[in-house]
Amino acid sequence: MTMYVVGHKIPDSDSICGAIALAYLKNQIDEPAIASRLGELSPETAFILDKFGFEAPEFKESYAGENVYIVDHSELTQAPDDIAQATIVGIVDHHKLGDLTTSTPLECWIRPVGCSNTIIKMMYDFHNVEIPKDIAGIMMCAILSDTVIFKSPTCTTADIKCVEALAEIAGIEDYKALGMEMFKVKSAVEGTPVRDLVMRDFKDFNMNGNKVGIGQLEVIDLAVFDDIKAELAADIAAMKNEGERHTMMLLLTDIMKEGSEVLVISEDDTLIERAYGKAPTDGKVWLDGVLSRKKQVVPPLQDAFA
Amino acid sequence: MTMYVVGHKIPDSDSICGAIALAYLKNQIDEPAIASRLGELSPETAFILDKFGFEAPEFKESYAGENVYIVDHSELTQAPDDIAQATIVGIVDHHKLGDLTTSTPLECWIRPVGCSNTIIKMMYDFHNVEIPKDIAGIMMCAILSDTVIFKSPTCTTADIKCVEALAEIAGIEDYKALGMEMFKVKSAVEGTPVRDLVMRDFKDFNMNGNKVGIGQLEVIDLAVFDDIKAELAADIAAMKNEGERHTMMLLLTDIMKEGSEVLVISEDDTLIERAYGKAPTDGKVWLDGVLSRKKQVVPPLQDAFA
Ligand SMILES: [Mn+2]
Ligand SMILES: [Mn+2]
Repeated sequence: MTMYVVGHKIPDSDSICGAIALAYLKNQIDEPAIASRLGELSPETAFILDKFGFEAPEFKESYAGENVYIVDHSELTQAPDDIAQATIVGIVDHHKLGDLTTSTPLECWIRPVGCSNTIIKMMYDFHNVEIPKDIAGIMMCAILSDTVIFKSPTCTTADIKCVEALAEIAGIEDYKALGMEMFKVKSAVEGTPVRDLVMRDFKDFNMNGNKVGIGQLEVIDLAVFDDIKAELAADIAAMKNEGERHTMMLLLTDIMKEGSEVLVISEDDTLIERAYGKAPTDGKVWLDGVLSRKKQVVPPLQDAFA
Repeated sequence: MTMYVVGHKIPDSDSICGAIALAYLKNQIDEPAIASRLGELSPETAFILDKFGFEAPEFKESYAGENVYIVDHSELTQAPDDIAQATIVGIVDHHKLGDLTTSTPLECWIRPVGCSNTIIKMMYDFHNVEIPKDIAGIMMCAILSDTVIFKSPTCTTADIKCVEALAEIAGIEDYKALGMEMFKVKSAVEGTPVRDLVMRDFKDFNMNGNKVGIGQLEVIDLAVFDDIKAELAADIAAMKNEGERHTMMLLLTDIMKEGSEVLVISEDDTLIERAYGKAPTDGKVWLDGVLSRKKQVVPPLQDAFA
């Protein structure tokens, strides 16, 4: 039975490139697979696919009765709505272990590295399957994206070695330049509706029973937000009410200065100070050195809620 | 920080041998590790450790504040009671994905194969670490135990190849004979208190909110139970009440005839027929071809509860 390989809701480059790369691998080892996606491509991902000549994976929301291989998470809230009616045959991920469960044995390739595509490279090596040039290219870009060109504290030696190996296969000499080009595409926010920006890389978390939404925008210069910061703040306030969330945060991450300005609105104003040791002023706080939502933002907040 | 490597409650040979083998591997790659256990050794496991010259791993029930690598399950009910106060750094397992979650990234080596030790062999290969002769011996025995010397439907080509490779390293020519010797040890039930027999390989499951206890005794001839079957039935009835369980089952598995006589007592007598297509008579039913709790007993029961 054909499996669908699908990343999380509001897919990032890791979810999309990982689905394509893993579906290709599975087909090579006689396990028929189709890459799919749960949402629209971000401008960054569209740039990557275009650069290496790929179409977007099939948009598919319902998976009842299907076999599904999950990429880049293990959380119910980030999975297809009807995942309980599907059979999860595998998970490849690099986040904390979430609340997905299964009723049958499966494979899980979960490692504490910077990107799911680094693990997918290990899967290619395990199965001794050659990575085509174009697939190496999109895998490499996904790793450069997730690790913020190796600057993120989530980046490991395995990620760096993997990018180097993939760059060689893809025939790309200056992969850091390609990474910067990618982040320039990501930094283009002008003309994009404010809600689209907040939702571009957005995840809901369950923290001790409370719904917490955290979005992140990584840019090469925070000045791009100067004219729209008030609108962004108003929009996360609206999303807090619409989604009955306890807390809404938007990380405006400056990858050159290596830190994040956090816009926040919460039922409990003391949470942020408890989590990060710094209180917001007018719903804003600068967190120096904070680049990673997964490693630097979520765990302290989860502890503050606990 | 040193990690503890620990299998499930009421440890089987896979849990104990896997903890020893994985702790050794981790120490070889400069990740200090200590094998531990949550319960007494079964006679089978004692036989294996004795055969290859190992002491039992440290008995340790509390893990608050420790780093823990989980072997052979991913279920809260099978983990240390204070696992929420520990940091799970990894899971190696071959069962369905359970309800353990973490607040930090970890490694999960989960594969749909017959035994956790087959996956631990893959970990040795991945890290390019040589397996010592004695460790190869206990890993091999764990796989022969979990796969019922390859007869279980959970057994895969990977398990068979792994046993062959480990037998070569351990210098054991007739591994099937060693497997039979092991199952003869397992079949010696005379003189053992009935409760000890029921608990020897026992797991509680959460099935749609109901607590279901399932024990299993694998022997080479069911005749060993002739004189104590009534006592076993009385004891699972007692355990149902003591543990406020919805259902209690004890699988008496005949590994030569390849099937199981199931002793059962339940709040809902129609469950067993719905799950297995055959109704019990006087709390007993023979299920032909059923050797595996994990693959043939749990999933249909879970579906019947759903
Ligand atoms: Mn990722
Ligand atoms: Mn096992």
